[in-house]
Amino acid sequence: GYAMVDHHRSLRSGYPETIFSQGKTVEQVVGIARRLLEKNVNIMATRADRNVYEALQAIGESVEYHAAARIAVINRQPVPPTRTTILVMCAGTSDIPVAEEAAVTAEVMGNRVERLADVGVAGIHRLLAKRKIIQSASVLVVVAGMDGALPSVTAGLTDKPVIAVPTSIGYGASFGGLAALLTMLNSCANGVTVVNIDNGYGAGYAASLINRM
Amino acid sequence: GYAMVDHHRSLRSGYPETIFSQGKTVEQVVGIARRLLEKNVNIMATRADRNVYEALQAIGESVEYHAAARIAVINRQPVPPTRTTILVMCAGTSDIPVAEEAAVTAEVMGNRVERLADVGVAGIHRLLAKRKIIQSASVLVVVAGMDGALPSVTAGLTDKPVIAVPTSIGYGASFGGLAALLTMLNSCANGVTVVNIDNGYGAGYAASLINRM
Amino acid sequence: GYAMVDHHRSLRSGYPETIFSQGKTVEQVVGIARRLLEKNVNIMATRADRNVYEALQAIGESVEYHAAARIAVINRQPVPPTRTTILVMCAGTSDIPVAEEAAVTAEVMGNRVERLADVGVAGIHRLLAKRKIIQSASVLVVVAGMDGALPSVTAGLTDKPVIAVPTSIGYGASFGGLAALLTMLNSCANGVTVVNIDNGYGAGYAASLINRM
Amino acid sequence: GYAMVDHHRSLRSGYPETIFSQGKTVEQVVGIARRLLEKNVNIMATRADRNVYEALQAIGESVEYHAAARIAVINRQPVPPTRTTILVMCAGTSDIPVAEEAAVTAEVMGNRVERLADVGVAGIHRLLAKRKIIQSASVLVVVAGMDGALPSVTAGLTDKPVIAVPTSIGYGASFGGLAALLTMLNSCANGVTVVNIDNGYGAGYAASLINRM
Amino acid sequence: GYAMVDHHRSLRSGYPETIFSQGKTVEQVVGIARRLLEKNVNIMATRADRNVYEALQAIGESVEYHAAARIAVINRQPVPPTRTTILVMCAGTSDIPVAEEAAVTAEVMGNRVERLADVGVAGIHRLLAKRKIIQSASVLVVVAGMDGALPSVTAGLTDKPVIAVPTSIGYGASFGGLAALLTMLNSCANGVTVVNIDNGYGAGYAASLINRM
Amino acid sequence: GYAMVDHHRSLRSGYPETIFSQGKTVEQVVGIARRLLEKNVNIMATRADRNVYEALQAIGESVEYHAAARIAVINRQPVPPTRTTILVMCAGTSDIPVAEEAAVTAEVMGNRVERLADVGVAGIHRLLAKRKIIQSASVLVVVAGMDGALPSVTAGLTDKPVIAVPTSIGYGASFGGLAALLTMLNSCANGVTVVNIDNGYGAGYAASLINRM
Amino acid sequence: GYAMVDHHRSLRSGYPETIFSQGKTVEQVVGIARRLLEKNVNIMATRADRNVYEALQAIGESVEYHAAARIAVINRQPVPPTRTTILVMCAGTSDIPVAEEAAVTAEVMGNRVERLADVGVAGIHRLLAKRKIIQSASVLVVVAGMDGALPSVTAGLTDKPVIAVPTSIGYGASFGGLAALLTMLNSCANGVTVVNIDNGYGAGYAASLINRM
Amino acid sequence: GYAMVDHHRSLRSGYPETIFSQGKTVEQVVGIARRLLEKNVNIMATRADRNVYEALQAIGESVEYHAAARIAVINRQPVPPTRTTILVMCAGTSDIPVAEEAAVTAEVMGNRVERLADVGVAGIHRLLAKRKIIQSASVLVVVAGMDGALPSVTAGLTDKPVIAVPTSIGYGASFGGLAALLTMLNSCANGVTVVNIDNGYGAGYAASLINRM
Ligand SMILES: Nc1ncnc2c1ncn2[C@@H]1O[C@H](COP(=O)(O)O)[C@@H](O)[C@H]1O
Ligand SMILES: Nc1ncnc2c1ncn2[C@@H]1O[C@H](COP(=O)(O)O)[C@@H](O)[C@H]1O
Ligand SMILES: Nc1ncnc2c1ncn2[C@@H]1O[C@H](COP(=O)(O)O)[C@@H](O)[C@H]1O
Ligand SMILES: Nc1ncnc2c1ncn2[C@@H]1O[C@H](COP(=O)(O)O)[C@@H](O)[C@H]1O
Ligand SMILES: [Mg+2]
Ligand SMILES: [Mg+2]
Ligand SMILES: [Mg+2]
Ligand SMILES: [Mg+2]
Ligand SMILES: [Mg+2]
Ligand SMILES: [Mg+2]
Ligand SMILES: [Mg+2]
Ligand SMILES: [Mg+2]
Repeated sequence: GYAMVDHHRSLRSGYPETIFSQGKTVEQVVGIARRLLEKNVNIMATRADRNVYEALQAIGESVEYHAAARIAVINRQPVPPTRTTILVMCAGTSDIPVAEEAAVTAEVMGNRVERLADVGVAGIHRLLAKRKIIQSASVLVVVAGMDGALPSVTAGLTDKPVIAVPTSIGYGASFGGLAALLTMLNSCANGVTVVNIDNGYGAGYAASLINRM
Repeated sequence: GYAMVDHHRSLRSGYPETIFSQGKTVEQVVGIARRLLEKNVNIMATRADRNVYEALQAIGESVEYHAAARIAVINRQPVPPTRTTILVMCAGTSDIPVAEEAAVTAEVMGNRVERLADVGVAGIHRLLAKRKIIQSASVLVVVAGMDGALPSVTAGLTDKPVIAVPTSIGYGASFGGLAALLTMLNSCANGVTVVNIDNGYGAGYAASLINRM
Repeated sequence: GYAMVDHHRSLRSGYPETIFSQGKTVEQVVGIARRLLEKNVNIMATRADRNVYEALQAIGESVEYHAAARIAVINRQPVPPTRTTILVMCAGTSDIPVAEEAAVTAEVMGNRVERLADVGVAGIHRLLAKRKIIQSASVLVVVAGMDGALPSVTAGLTDKPVIAVPTSIGYGASFGGLAALLTMLNSCANGVTVVNIDNGYGAGYAASLINRM
Repeated sequence: GYAMVDHHRSLRSGYPETIFSQGKTVEQVVGIARRLLEKNVNIMATRADRNVYEALQAIGESVEYHAAARIAVINRQPVPPTRTTILVMCAGTSDIPVAEEAAVTAEVMGNRVERLADVGVAGIHRLLAKRKIIQSASVLVVVAGMDGALPSVTAGLTDKPVIAVPTSIGYGASFGGLAALLTMLNSCANGVTVVNIDNGYGAGYAASLINRM
Repeated sequence: GYAMVDHHRSLRSGYPETIFSQGKTVEQVVGIARRLLEKNVNIMATRADRNVYEALQAIGESVEYHAAARIAVINRQPVPPTRTTILVMCAGTSDIPVAEEAAVTAEVMGNRVERLADVGVAGIHRLLAKRKIIQSASVLVVVAGMDGALPSVTAGLTDKPVIAVPTSIGYGASFGGLAALLTMLNSCANGVTVVNIDNGYGAGYAASLINRM
Repeated sequence: GYAMVDHHRSLRSGYPETIFSQGKTVEQVVGIARRLLEKNVNIMATRADRNVYEALQAIGESVEYHAAARIAVINRQPVPPTRTTILVMCAGTSDIPVAEEAAVTAEVMGNRVERLADVGVAGIHRLLAKRKIIQSASVLVVVAGMDGALPSVTAGLTDKPVIAVPTSIGYGASFGGLAALLTMLNSCANGVTVVNIDNGYGAGYAASLINRM
Repeated sequence: GYAMVDHHRSLRSGYPETIFSQGKTVEQVVGIARRLLEKNVNIMATRADRNVYEALQAIGESVEYHAAARIAVINRQPVPPTRTTILVMCAGTSDIPVAEEAAVTAEVMGNRVERLADVGVAGIHRLLAKRKIIQSASVLVVVAGMDGALPSVTAGLTDKPVIAVPTSIGYGASFGGLAALLTMLNSCANGVTVVNIDNGYGAGYAASLINRM
Repeated sequence: GYAMVDHHRSLRSGYPETIFSQGKTVEQVVGIARRLLEKNVNIMATRADRNVYEALQAIGESVEYHAAARIAVINRQPVPPTRTTILVMCAGTSDIPVAEEAAVTAEVMGNRVERLADVGVAGIHRLLAKRKIIQSASVLVVVAGMDGALPSVTAGLTDKPVIAVPTSIGYGASFGGLAALLTMLNSCANGVTVVNIDNGYGAGYAASLINRM
């Protein structure tokens, strides 16, 4: 077999097993899913296009598809939701797919999630107008491309941990998200940590670990 | 004045105000400290050499100096320590200064901190021998230079959040810590987030926010 | 001779001739200054340490030395100051030398200059508290290292042109100012243009061209 | 809603609200446009292909489409044009789309605009032959790919501010416009500031802020 | 002719002559193959898609096609296999094509080859469970993308030479395999050497030279 | 008009005027050609695909098309050929298009040109076997991708100027030709100068200037 | 203690334990050495300056110091030498320290070592004159800075494995050894693998693993 | 011996043998010089500081020292000078050392050399004023740091080959000469070839090969 499956963690925590679909054939994704389902765990396929979704349905499971997030979920044992909130924010409309990947990941892992879109730092009043929702979250996932400045400003408005997600949205000297990544790594605000460019999944997962502590 | 001071947060949280001494003259550090002390907050000067330490003592305060961490602390109101633990690990002897910066920062912010040094991934048994201490921590700060592989392996041994700190330790294609930084950003392990190269302070601070939730 | 001198512009505009001292011997700077002085123009030596200053004094001129800005000025024909204002802001204490290079350059070129230091985006209220001075300036020079996010936020608070100056202040993934430079080039705010890392002179000069239109 | 709209500025200044279409679906662009039109402002959609143009027409507005510039304009309240001129120059035929983005942006914002194409520095006499038009402009936008040398030479021919726009035109070691960008940031000429690679819009906007002072 | 052929080595060693098909037309590959076959040597075409395979069959040879490895082989003189083993490991399912390129190359060159797939470092127990097979190999080829950490850990489990192969699998800050490459070059484990990103062929070849010593 | 044409040089030297077709529409190329032809000069369109070739034919000219070189030529006044020779060498079969761009450019400019393909440094005897042809050339254009080592070795075999052309042929750490470019810039051999990645045209042109001195 | 010591391997293999002295204080090196010596293993301190050497002597051991290689050795149990040979070659005089680090490492590990210095590819006859010694080695370590072309040519002259070591020798576009590193990774010759810039130790170690198989 | 010496070329051509002193000890330079002098050739030591100069004098030779160029020359057989001229130009005062390295190299190799300093493109008239000297040269070496734009403009003023030398002069986004290097590689002017950053020697050597054809 081309993929060994390790489901101790998911049985223990109720957490889903994740299949990263990008770079895999539909057959490979389905094959891995089948083996995981034998153990009766929840499954989440990320970077999954409609073909993956339909192939998973075809094996006779009830599959939820989150198109904007590109995530397909098979939820056999629902995880009880948290009372505290993860806030997923993004700077621009084009960042929404990455933000959705984070938000859906966190939801599947049993977190209450709030969303806030299109609050760039160039219009600071729109951001400040949302201060209450920002300050009521327990963990924040802040998604931004281009100049990547949103996490710095946001972290200044809260005492909670901020997970910054650079996106590849931009052109020219954004160099595929490098500019936003460097901005976030150099943030002068306290409490900011960073994940890979476009890694909404990783941010949602880490936020869930923190929120469920 | 060359520095405006903002101490609402520290008054509210008991957290220290931090002065980043690198790139400032001793006079500038002392000047900022004086103004902060008027508000009766705790102070932590990072990247502080002995000159900074002695100049702070000279203004008549009781200053603790953590030489390995390069941190000078003026602790007017002790913060009650947590029961849960932050584990600060590092891969090699040369990474210790950065690990200490993280550990002392977390301690000053009122966390119980454990330390684990010299547990590189090339001798995996030395790491596995420490599995108990790894699994009993609530948050982990994992510091590594060169190949930066330690956070990936460590995160696989725990379900708690891991904050990865790349260091500039290395030579040649380590490019001043870039290699370790990229390794950590590309970690395949769940729950890993990353801070700037050599940013022990930022890791300790974020770990504290999480540990004290 | 090792340097041809071109003073049409300065005669015409009353603008100073600039000698970029970095990478030149004191003898070369003095030699160039002597030749310029034969034409009775104003002179400004940038990146000038005390040796340059003293050597210029030694040729019998009245020289003003701006230590923080590292600029020595010989002002034979004072330029009448503008009524409109150039605001020079910087994010951190360590950015002050670059900000001063911009401010002094603009002053020598006959502009009214205001200064605002230590207004990073992580403490957005300190920045907003200065909104009046920001909105009364005709041109803004905004200097920042590390994450370089200040120009984006500032440009959102004004309808005037903002010249962004990245500095080499920082460490690790700041890569000598590259991170701040990329942030500024990717700014989502309208009206931002950018100069070279640490190029306070260039920003001050361009700001003056705009302010004196 | 996926995009909050902020139209204070455009109401106040008569300036258009801009929608950056790249990375947005046609539906998203139209949705944002509809909300903006409720406030009776002018709208400019940049990086807009014909689909965007036609979808905007379909909502019953009179839309102007500038194909070379990839800009669609809905002009409800014409802005009175300036008497002073912005000159938009480019080095090669392939740079024209970026130059047009700058020129149309400036025109929509109420500026008189002149154009000069195909005046590379390798044929300096063609450039010098245009000296009169260069020296009669109040602000210059200078667009170039490959070696990006045109702004340096042009700025030497005028005392007015020059906004340099690197383009991604080129191959090999042009690295997607990086070479031209670095050339422009390192320009030895006074008065040059720089925007992102291919950012004709940003250059046109900043030029307008300066020209309308 | 567009390609000079040199077959001394292959006649001497029984080793195949290799044609790197990428960037060549099918006609060029077939032309080179024809000339080699006149000398009665074995041939291996790497980076060969089905078109190349079918074109080689069309010249009347018995061709073996390894689809996953993208290698077509014409084996006129079988090479006697070794008793010692080369182990080819990879970290993830998506790395399999590169691992197969290494494995098939080594097999064609007459080596006994074992394979181990999907043993990333984030699930260290899955790796440790394979310790016996790891320690019984004479040479190891270790293939990984993303964080590229597998060779460091593996080399710590054996005293045999490890050839590390970074892959371009990943996204964002993997920068097309650069992250994994740097990780491997900075490996703290003894006995690790590295080949180009995605260069399964080079790794298989070098492993064979070592294994057949 | 979108392109000013400057033909003093070509009239004076008999040299062709060049149109760089990449990034231009067929209409733009034809438009520029028409204007040039009014002056009765020779024309060479580089990076020209068959569409450009056919469009040029359609304006009623006799056009030669060099498919491998992607060059279309309209030769109204033949240039008398040199007696001395330019040798154009390349390391691999995939480098031939760039080598041909150099060779055809040099031929159109009236040089005698020899060609040598597929002489990589890893089979040094094949290179040494060609020593006579190498040493009889007056100028050498040496084209190589991947490791780009051929110019260093070749320059050691001759006392004539060597123009090195890196190509984008390769994968992984060749980074689109960057590796070969850096190798050539760092060549330890005397007499080597370098042009842009894939710039066969520039190498052929410079070689012609030297050969015709 | 700041360093855990793991000496199973050295006891088993007779191989020395290595202390990488760079970035450690003399006290740290001595402390680690003391603990290792309790187990009666051989010790090798790399990147060791005279201070390290003298401090090791001061603890009462017989220490050999290889100044050019910057290695100090405490050899309690001599390793029986091999009959087969490792050849360590370098391209220029300035590469000798890195070559010596490789050669001494291999000797301490019990290998017969030959040395060949100053055989750059620009004088190919000097290299070819050494063909006999090249072809009689079982493993080759090839060290080069600047263009890094020597391993490609050398590997073409032998059927044995070649370990390529880029050095930081060079200036300008050598970028601290990056150019040589990329050249070696892109080598078109079979059997070449690469280690980190300046990593003579790693090359010598891997060569020993291969030579002693 | 640490350096093999190869003097066929210099005996044949009257050209000097060159010793690159950077990275070598004075003893190594003198040792190499001694062995060369046995063959009665001319010697040129580049990157030579006064210590090298004095050590060469101490072996009893008549040595000429060019301090600005950092070149020491032992001239046993004077080379007859050419009638045609190499023009060495540089953009700024700080570029003079590199320009002198080129000029002195060319002179030692028997060329007539003209010099032109401080003719940056931002003051194009100063450059145009020198058009006669530019057009009377047979080969041009054009040296520039910062934006590196001078070779493009100069090549447009002549039909002779231009060798462009980027220098490491600059700061910030000049990245140690990278900006100037890329500018020159991307030059739109015909006839430009490029050497390594600061490589005045290589430019002077190649210019001499061309000028003496
Ligand atoms: N969108 C994503 N981005 C990054 N990593 C992911 C993503 N989705 C899943 N992963 C990781 O990939 C692992 C599964 O990888 P695989 O074994 O290749 O399916 C998961 O356990 C996660 O660690
Ligand atoms: N601090 C500075 N940074 C960048 N450029 C400068 C600076 N100071 C002066 N310059 C430029 O350098 C020119 C003078 O350079 P130079 O001829 O080398 O003295 C001035 O005309 C400015 O264009
Ligand atoms: N293949 C090529 N690569 C680089 N530059 C070229 C090439 N072909 C033409 N050129 C240059 O492009 C100029 C014409 O550019 P354009 O005015 O855009 O047609 C010529 O004069 C050459 O300098
Ligand atoms: N010169 C060297 N370059 C790279 N790695 C080395 C070098 N010398 C020793 N090492 C590695 O560093 C390890 C010891 O590191 P440490 O525990 O920091 O003393 C050794 O086991 C080697 O893997
Ligand atoms: Mg905060
Ligand atoms: Mg974990
Ligand atoms: Mg604004
Ligand atoms: Mg100007
Ligand atoms: Mg091992
Ligand atoms: Mg030669
Ligand atoms: Mg070989
Ligand atoms: Mg020319």
